[in-house]
Amino acid sequence: MQKEESNRIRVEIYGTEYQLRGNASTAHIRLVAGLVDDKMREIAFHNPRLDLNRLAVLAAVNIADEYMRLREEYEELLKILEQSEERKQGRLDL
Amino acid sequence: MQKEESNRIRVEIYGTEYQLRGNASTAHIRLVAGLVDDKMREIAFHNPRLDLNRLAVLAAVNIADEYMRLREEYEELLKILEQSEERKQGRLDL
Repeated sequence: MQKEESNRIRVEIYGTEYQLRGNASTAHIRLVAGLVDDKMREIAFHNPRLDLNRLAVLAAVNIADEYMRLREEYEELLKILEQSEERKQGRLDL
Repeated sequence: MQKEESNRIRVEIYGTEYQLRGNASTAHIRLVAGLVDDKMREIAFHNPRLDLNRLAVLAAVNIADEYMRLREEYEELLKILEQSEERKQGRLDL
């Protein structure tokens, strides 16, 4: 079983420092912070007059959009796998 | 094929109105906005003195964290499905 250890790590997101903590690896936390930083820069590039609050909220909205789409695909994949397993089970029962 | 239509929809996230647009359904956009609103309220509840910028960035970080975890699970599932398909192919080739 994985040991529940809390990592504290300093990251910079869009020029501001954040201290993040979690039981994920340092690499994972850095990856997550990088994703938010990238998204904020991308949105700011296309909307240079956007204030910081709205920029951060829109970054969250964009990431949430990708999350929801991926969740749908994940559930679809899970269904396919379950059906494939059921067919396999059916074959063995004969 | 799905028609590429751009939906414009007004949503409220943490008390501020946003006009979001995208080719997703209105229901999907509302769901996404709801996810961000929920996450901001959850973080604010546990950190009542957090300023709005940091709150929004931390909401984005939390959602990005869930996204990255889901992506790992998705890739894992895809691998299992591919292996299962390969085994099936192997059986047919014999």
